Amino acid sequence: METDVLVIGGSAGGILAALSVKKTYKDKKVTVIRMAERVMVPCGIPYIFGTLKDTSKNVIPDSMLTNAGVELVIDEVVSIDRQNKKVSTRKNGDISYKKLILATGSLPIVPTFIPGYDLDNVFTIKKDEEYLKFVQQKINEAEDVVVVGGGFIGVEMAEQVQLLGKNVTIIEVADKLLWQAFDPEFSDMAEAKLKEHGIKVLTGTKVTKFIGEKEVKEVEIHTGERIKADVVIVAMGVKPNTKLAEEAGIKLNEKGAITVDEYMRTNDPDIFAVGDCAEKKCFFTRKNVPILLASIAANEAKIAGVNAFELRLVRENKGTISAFSTKIYNTAFAAAGLTETQARAEGFDIVIGEFNTIDKHPGTLPNTMNVKIKLIFSRYSGVILGAQLAGGDNVGEMINILSLAIQKGTTASELTTFQVATHPLLTSSPVSYPISSAALDALSKI
Amino acid sequence: METDVLVIGGSAGGILAALSVKKTYKDKKVTVIRMAERVMVPCGIPYIFGTLKDTSKNVIPDSMLTNAGVELVIDEVVSIDRQNKKVSTRKNGDISYKKLILATGSLPIVPTFIPGYDLDNVFTIKKDEEYLKFVQQKINEAEDVVVVGGGFIGVEMAEQVQLLGKNVTIIEVADKLLWQAFDPEFSDMAEAKLKEHGIKVLTGTKVTKFIGEKEVKEVEIHTGERIKADVVIVAMGVKPNTKLAEEAGIKLNEKGAITVDEYMRTNDPDIFAVGDCAEKKCFFTRKNVPILLASIAANEAKIAGVNAFELRLVRENKGTISAFSTKIYNTAFAAAGLTETQARAEGFDIVIGEFNTIDKHPGTLPNTMNVKIKLIFSRYSGVILGAQLAGGDNVGEMINILSLAIQKGTTASELTTFQVATHPLLTSSPVSYPISSAALDALSKI
Repeated sequence: METDVLVIGGSAGGILAALSVKKTYKDKKVTVIRMAERVMVPCGIPYIFGTLKDTSKNVIPDSMLTNAGVELVIDEVVSIDRQNKKVSTRKNGDISYKKLILATGSLPIVPTFIPGYDLDNVFTIKKDEEYLKFVQQKINEAEDVVVVGGGFIGVEMAEQVQLLGKNVTIIEVADKLLWQAFDPEFSDMAEAKLKEHGIKVLTGTKVTKFIGEKEVKEVEIHTGERIKADVVIVAMGVKPNTKLAEEAGIKLNEKGAITVDEYMRTNDPDIFAVGDCAEKKCFFTRKNVPILLASIAANEAKIAGVNAFELRLVRENKGTISAFSTKIYNTAFAAAGLTETQARAEGFDIVIGEFNTIDKHPGTLPNTMNVKIKLIFSRYSGVILGAQLAGGDNVGEMINILSLAIQKGTTASELTTFQVATHPLLTSSPVSYPISSAALDALSKI
Repeated sequence: METDVLVIGGSAGGILAALSVKKTYKDKKVTVIRMAERVMVPCGIPYIFGTLKDTSKNVIPDSMLTNAGVELVIDEVVSIDRQNKKVSTRKNGDISYKKLILATGSLPIVPTFIPGYDLDNVFTIKKDEEYLKFVQQKINEAEDVVVVGGGFIGVEMAEQVQLLGKNVTIIEVADKLLWQAFDPEFSDMAEAKLKEHGIKVLTGTKVTKFIGEKEVKEVEIHTGERIKADVVIVAMGVKPNTKLAEEAGIKLNEKGAITVDEYMRTNDPDIFAVGDCAEKKCFFTRKNVPILLASIAANEAKIAGVNAFELRLVRENKGTISAFSTKIYNTAFAAAGLTETQARAEGFDIVIGEFNTIDKHPGTLPNTMNVKIKLIFSRYSGVILGAQLAGGDNVGEMINILSLAIQKGTTASELTTFQVATHPLLTSSPVSYPISSAALDALSKI
């Protein structure tokens, strides 16, 4: 088989890489090869359990690709022959390419360092539909569920499983939940929301053993205490899936991610890598950071796709700003850029702007919620370094105003007076718009 | 009485001017003088009728001012003595000032050119609470209500009055509703939403007469047809309220708005003007534009407030970008910058990016809505000129991403790859995020 552009991997990065190539170079043949019959919406996976209740409701439709004229092959690539610019597959023989885009994603970290990690009913969260169906069945049958890891996936899984009426415990080794994205005051709010709904939260707590015969029965923590568990969900993070690339002699960085340049090109000029398998640099420091998100994958995929045959998007990959959002029961939490803790640790001289208000106006309107905002600015240059928000659903897009502000090097004084559309039913009041009010608070401290 | 800074007017502009001065110059005495006992949330006024059902629920609390240490005087200023830097009031004698900020707002246009404009039950929308209570009572008693004017206030009033079960007709002289903010395809969507709920929409229609003895009974249109009306709401726009300024010899522009510089200073260096009473320049053309919004007032108020005693925010008033949002039944509509029609009329060489998607992912999640986006770019420079959106509530903040993008001169290629936070319950999928997808669509046409 022959194609112009071959994309390995069918999740966010792979799909968008293929679509971007096809949209940019209309005459090229673009092929996506992936292993899964059906692709799960990656960020939707936690919501299979408590909200959607069916993996079939969490499928990315193939029509996105096929309608755009992208070829789809369900198969596994077993090796890449860079010399002859072709890959070998398990069922379809060789496929030759002019340009290859690796979007092989990530794999969950399996806690082989914790005894009992391989007991039945100790699950990581893989993106495979059949596997997830099995996990779902076991969760539905369970009474006590322990989630190991208090990052986004852990917190979302805990909330969803609690909605099914299970007894849920989250165990996090760090002092705070969601500490990679939020400062303590926001983590504390998130923790309070979970506790309100009866979830037991153990922070600063290390899992020492999974206990059981064939199936897990208990989780032992560093104090010696044991917690009942019919199911354990391990959400300790993910690592780049780069075996195929490594075997083909493509260069990896010290964290095992594929090394890429500004245009997502690997050390082989005809091979690109995007998404979780590719290395990420911090927007502020250029350090390698392990921030693996579908939204970043989508972004990198567009850079690779548009630049596949010639460089059209000039230096668009400025590094990741770590933009996150989630919802814990009725409260949305979102963050972008550096936290106060991270900014201080990196040595930035900062000034903080804070504000609390409501997300509609007047506050007597139905479903009005509180909004809490914290902005972190460089004191000397005035440039925004980070933002954190908690509030109603509109926080999910408000963080993207701040994401853009960070990417454009916007200053506190610009944000104080930037023009926004406001409406009683949709936003805070123009008199107390969260972003400009927090920016004004920061300015008054400079 | 003496004060350092006197602010005349107690709505969005006045409040925020006072708060900004106080936050910036903590030792200064700041006084707000206003006529109303209680201040109505200006953009909340339509929602008094169908949603809040009580003017008491639409009040801006005075605690915003008093908690910040701002003095409040309920009185009317009858004249300004610039020579001696004092104003005379109706009840409190003279008040001397060091700096004066005019935030006298706007008054609704009264259609004196339409016979019968002064019949009973023909109302404009004033910001006075007692007046609004009376209008509300008349609307509640009515069966047939005619709204003259299909701009934002007209459309919002029509929707709210229809929610009370009244027969509602909107009459708009232009070809499309909301034509100042939206291109025809979005106006058509808005019109369809109104018609779905039984509102009669007459566009391209001129009101020739209000008919009745003492009270209005019918509205006559240019075809000679008559429409039954127990109440008529006139929402034909507003004009700057500048009588006080004019009488004090402060310079007005040809549209009757107070002339101001980049720092909101009038021709008197100690007198600032902000909000609806001050002139507005277009961000793109510097032409005078009559875009009177509380959000712009808030913005200008901060510029005046922070700059009251020394210029601290340098050239922050870059002109208005006309950022709007509203909600018509379950669908939010929002716009910023130039429409396609306006951009072409101004002579811009443009390229359009469009995209349709859903506002959650997967689309099987509860309350998922369609999102429609249109972006307008300068073809040559790639810079974004305008944006229009229709969709769920999160469109209300998504437009502010685009507002910032416009203000920062962001290009299509930057927007294609700008990093966003995405989440199943809060945003569109990273694979089809509306802004970056529409930007990619535009790029593929350049």
